Amino acid sequence: MTLEEALNDTAQLVARTVDQLLPRPEDAEAKLLEAMRYAMTGGKRLRPFLALQSGRLFGVDEANMVRVAVAVECIHAYSLIHDDLPAMDNDTLRRGQPTTHVRFDEATAILAGDALQAMAFEILANPLTHSDPYVRCNLILALSKAAGCHGMVGGQMIDLECENMNPNIGMVTRLHQMKTGALIAFSCESGAIMGRASKEPTHALRAFAHDLGLAFQVVDDLLDVEGDPEIMGKSAGKDTESGKATFISILGLDRSREQAEYLSSQARTHLDLFDEKADLLRDVSKFVLTRHK
Amino acid sequence: MTLEEALNDTAQLVARTVDQLLPRPEDAEAKLLEAMRYAMTGGKRLRPFLALQSGRLFGVDEANMVRVAVAVECIHAYSLIHDDLPAMDNDTLRRGQPTTHVRFDEATAILAGDALQAMAFEILANPLTHSDPYVRCNLILALSKAAGCHGMVGGQMIDLECENMNPNIGMVTRLHQMKTGALIAFSCESGAIMGRASKEPTHALRAFAHDLGLAFQVVDDLLDVEGDPEIMGKSAGKDTESGKATFISILGLDRSREQAEYLSSQARTHLDLFDEKADLLRDVSKFVLTRHK
Repeated sequence: MTLEEALNDTAQLVARTVDQLLPRPEDAEAKLLEAMRYAMTGGKRLRPFLALQSGRLFGVDEANMVRVAVAVECIHAYSLIHDDLPAMDNDTLRRGQPTTHVRFDEATAILAGDALQAMAFEILANPLTHSDPYVRCNLILALSKAAGCHGMVGGQMIDLECENMNPNIGMVTRLHQMKTGALIAFSCESGAIMGRASKEPTHALRAFAHDLGLAFQVVDDLLDVEGDPEIMGKSAGKDTESGKATFISILGLDRSREQAEYLSSQARTHLDLFDEKADLLRDVSKFVLTRHK
Repeated sequence: MTLEEALNDTAQLVARTVDQLLPRPEDAEAKLLEAMRYAMTGGKRLRPFLALQSGRLFGVDEANMVRVAVAVECIHAYSLIHDDLPAMDNDTLRRGQPTTHVRFDEATAILAGDALQAMAFEILANPLTHSDPYVRCNLILALSKAAGCHGMVGGQMIDLECENMNPNIGMVTRLHQMKTGALIAFSCESGAIMGRASKEPTHALRAFAHDLGLAFQVVDDLLDVEGDPEIMGKSAGKDTESGKATFISILGLDRSREQAEYLSSQARTHLDLFDEKADLLRDVSKFVLTRHK
């Protein structure tokens, strides 16, 4: 299976599961549920893909693993809704569509994000995700840490604060490890948690995720400078406009490109202990370099 | 012990535990952690009190139960931060202090709310809360449902939608059961989950919470009309101003007062199967009628 086929499969599987797991709009709260579904539509589904591939490495049943994949996507989608708000990045376009607060309104967008976060933990706590409550608790502990004040949300806070300072490469790296890296790391590690894997493969996946996440972010910064807004489905040039410190503003274009290639290749070396089951993870580490959106 | 002493004890215990559990502001995300601590300061601590009293009924160790109490308070505090935002209720005063987005800024307030929600689930998933992961999963499942799109957040959505319609008493009741009732019900039930109680006492506590929560809300509506903003530490008259449908606007002042008294006394009948250990819960059902803030 090629990476493209696998990504498409993931997208379809995730869309079906989202449709099953997300409540249908009825009652007076219909608008909220519509906004939740809207925010959970489309996107690359990178995190679900990583979770599903991670599960494959340890023979985890896909029917269970896709629930973890959707839980991660709930957290990711909620963070995008809130990041796009006028008080935050003030973005009007996401995945080629109006952002949630533009399509609905600000209050609904805030609440849809809040409800998606609660839903992520509800999905993980449900026995359908894994029969062993110890495993479910480990998933919840890992995801709540990855999403919280020392993970994704903390990284977003630092990102906003950085606009008023002159951060060095260490700070920018730390902020991205928190803002996007933590959730990518959870995705890569989730199969090991579900499969009750030993320490060695778990650490290998964490190290892979670390390098992959940073490579992904460096390319994100490159795309903001060089990317085509029509292909990306979101605004470009926002970092330069806002005077934001990025890998590009600190390292320059050439060294940033080199750095992304180095991180991508280093990511693959951490997969050496896995057999061909990890090939799609190897492919995705190359794909992050060539993506256009 | 009088109810007042017990409430004071709860407030001190919760403040100490919040101080231990919430990370200290260091690093670049310091502002976020400060905002989280700010939002977790003060308040009646009604939900933690209910959780701790519920735990007492089943002999749950207070050191464990207070973690559940703080988790509920994290959810409550995050909901207040987000409800107060300009895009929502646009409140500037809460507990006699500037609301979080006024004291800090909007972006920080949104993120502090998000991080507090993640922290609630992180606290519950931690083995220190209960040694049995099955119990921890049950807590997380119950709290995520109470907080999510068919609970607190859904209720807030309906509340906002109601401003554009003419809701009947059934709708207003349902919205409050979701918006405030669900979290109060979780608080009352949490001791039964922690103590692995049988169905009968669990259902009794849920029924108690149902009536208590509604009584609490009717009094809230009464205070908005008759309360002293200085004592309450928040603005009054907001419901009338916004033309919001409340128990008062539908039932009138006299019938609302009667209804609150009826609900309070009905709440107590559900506690008949408990001995004097439930006396403080009986007291609190009377207290909601006489509170001034």
